[in-house]
Amino acid sequence: MLVTSQLHQFYQSFSTEFGAIIEQPQIAFEQYGQIDGPVIILAHGGLSSHHAAGRYQKDDILPGWWDGLVGEGKVFDTSKYRIISTNALGSMYGTSSALTINPATGKKYGASFPMVTMVDQAKFLYRFLQELGINHIELMAGPSMGSLLTLEMAAQYPDFIGKAISVATAGRMTPDGLAMHHFMINTIKMDADFNKGDYDDSSPLTSMRIVAQAIKFYYMHENIIKKLCWDNVEESSDSQQQRSDNVSEFVQGNSDQEIIGRDANCYITTLNAINSFDLGKGQVNFTAGVQRIKCPILLMNIDTDREFNVKWAQEVADILNRQFDEKVEPLQAQLHLITSDWGHLGCVKEVEQLTMHIDSFLNLPVSTCES
Amino acid sequence: MLVTSQLHQFYQSFSTEFGAIIEQPQIAFEQYGQIDGPVIILAHGGLSSHHAAGRYQKDDILPGWWDGLVGEGKVFDTSKYRIISTNALGSMYGTSSALTINPATGKKYGASFPMVTMVDQAKFLYRFLQELGINHIELMAGPSMGSLLTLEMAAQYPDFIGKAISVATAGRMTPDGLAMHHFMINTIKMDADFNKGDYDDSSPLTSMRIVAQAIKFYYMHENIIKKLCWDNVEESSDSQQQRSDNVSEFVQGNSDQEIIGRDANCYITTLNAINSFDLGKGQVNFTAGVQRIKCPILLMNIDTDREFNVKWAQEVADILNRQFDEKVEPLQAQLHLITSDWGHLGCVKEVEQLTMHIDSFLNLPVSTCES
Repeated sequence: MLVTSQLHQFYQSFSTEFGAIIEQPQIAFEQYGQIDGPVIILAHGGLSSHHAAGRYQKDDILPGWWDGLVGEGKVFDTSKYRIISTNALGSMYGTSSALTINPATGKKYGASFPMVTMVDQAKFLYRFLQELGINHIELMAGPSMGSLLTLEMAAQYPDFIGKAISVATAGRMTPDGLAMHHFMINTIKMDADFNKGDYDDSSPLTSMRIVAQAIKFYYMHENIIKKLCWDNVEESSDSQQQRSDNVSEFVQGNSDQEIIGRDANCYITTLNAINSFDLGKGQVNFTAGVQRIKCPILLMNIDTDREFNVKWAQEVADILNRQFDEKVEPLQAQLHLITSDWGHLGCVKEVEQLTMHIDSFLNLPVSTCES
Repeated sequence: MLVTSQLHQFYQSFSTEFGAIIEQPQIAFEQYGQIDGPVIILAHGGLSSHHAAGRYQKDDILPGWWDGLVGEGKVFDTSKYRIISTNALGSMYGTSSALTINPATGKKYGASFPMVTMVDQAKFLYRFLQELGINHIELMAGPSMGSLLTLEMAAQYPDFIGKAISVATAGRMTPDGLAMHHFMINTIKMDADFNKGDYDDSSPLTSMRIVAQAIKFYYMHENIIKKLCWDNVEESSDSQQQRSDNVSEFVQGNSDQEIIGRDANCYITTLNAINSFDLGKGQVNFTAGVQRIKCPILLMNIDTDREFNVKWAQEVADILNRQFDEKVEPLQAQLHLITSDWGHLGCVKEVEQLTMHIDSFLNLPVSTCES
């Protein structure tokens, strides 16, 4: 499937939660499938883009991140649905961010791009869909940051969303994830080349390389590191040196390739947005915040994910299912544990398990939605 | 208990596994208890020192890292044993390392200090004990890197050691640990101020700060981050911001305090030594390497430790216990899982559980030792 990245210019300016105004905002997105079909919205992981499926050019090595789920005959069936994948506010792939032009100055926002929250990201996405003339969506789904945005949308706009799917998720950003995100933010800010966000052509390279390496061992579980670096070393009297060299190469990787196009200011904007996520924000309490969600939701967490332990999805499911007589089936929230050697990356890697659970979830009656 | 750090000058030079010669080597150590008692050797974690117990001065805020285990009436009883805690070769607390003087030049070794392995660390320690006139030790014990050195000693010098205790351990350095260690080494080497190890007064500060922050979230489990940063925030409509600020402060911490005295070259030497650890090294295979251990051993891993998953201790225990008729009790290797919110740091924090298992292990008959 060949796809194109598109850009939508908003009709109106956008006000953030903290009162900043973004003039002439824009959003990057891709669209797949039937233009008159029921709408599915996909939302990407934090440092990823809206390139969810297909290839831009025939000879692209890799397709989009959920290509295994999106396409003809796949679980998000392009012969049936209109699928729109959008780039989050503040992200570095075309939507308004530190990398886009501030109309007031004619220059890139850079460090002056305002702080945005997950609440802002949801409002921004909702506004875009309104401007497209979409008044109801069949489903919203996403992994990682996209899973949080999905829950935020379902909570803010309960009548707008038919069903929601969140993979590697929580109802509020987790302690371990906060720690890793602050580590990344601090590392970038400590880089002399970051210069408080005022850098010229390229991002501060040293800190971006360090962050790229930290991502490797944080977001992947030991099981996959072992598979990639260890199991291919024949046991000998000196195999540890080879294993260590392989792990070193894995961590270092082609981090220079990986950081191409990654912008430090956008990183910080995005990580702060993720860190702000809490369904209880602005509500009486967390429970009340979660209970705003009215549609059926499918939560899937990865057993080896350090950032999103399944207990953080469980607390969401428990609150939602407590609202109803538990004998009523199906429950509003379904929670499945995905088994994976990949750690957090299981949220895009475990296509088979995701497909199985999504398929049966999509075929559920939507009775609880109207309750 | 007031203690003093001592220094022993070796009578002879020391040759490393890779053929480097360290002239006039020295080793830093502390000694507690009865000078004519049975000998216990303690070995420290990678970035720690030989300050295992007591205080240097009455008003020191913190005692040594295993102070809860070492003292009168404690499980390593100073009224009964002669307890010697030694600083590993290449470490930054007094033993020969990048920070000590190279007699050939009259200057600090710095980056010219040779690469050392875990095999070297064990040989160096054994040589020290020989020079002290100690021909047999009752017990060797240590957490983290000290647990690996303990196993290496037990494998290299099976007749020398009566019993061994390894806490947060493995028979070969683990994939996840290798990844974290290479990340730290790479981070230091990427720091322009590191200058290939040729720096003047202080270590490259930026990378040492980054490493100190990464250590926070890698070696501590989410449970303890939650306890420290999250559970003290009252739930409100804006509690996530406070939680996030607390986690940021936790990660950033007083990292400038923490890195005082930490030397980048010594870090790299030590991490490389840990990465080299494999009981199968130089042996027919891993099993044969492990089977060199003849004494009873007690292995304790922490359930929330990312670096040393219990399965890596299990493979050691399985090999050792397979050698004997399984009906014979006690087995040569005992393995206990320590439950802790602390992650890897449980190896020094969970004094009560450690005491319980060590106490019953020390009271075991040593029959398997002579088998």
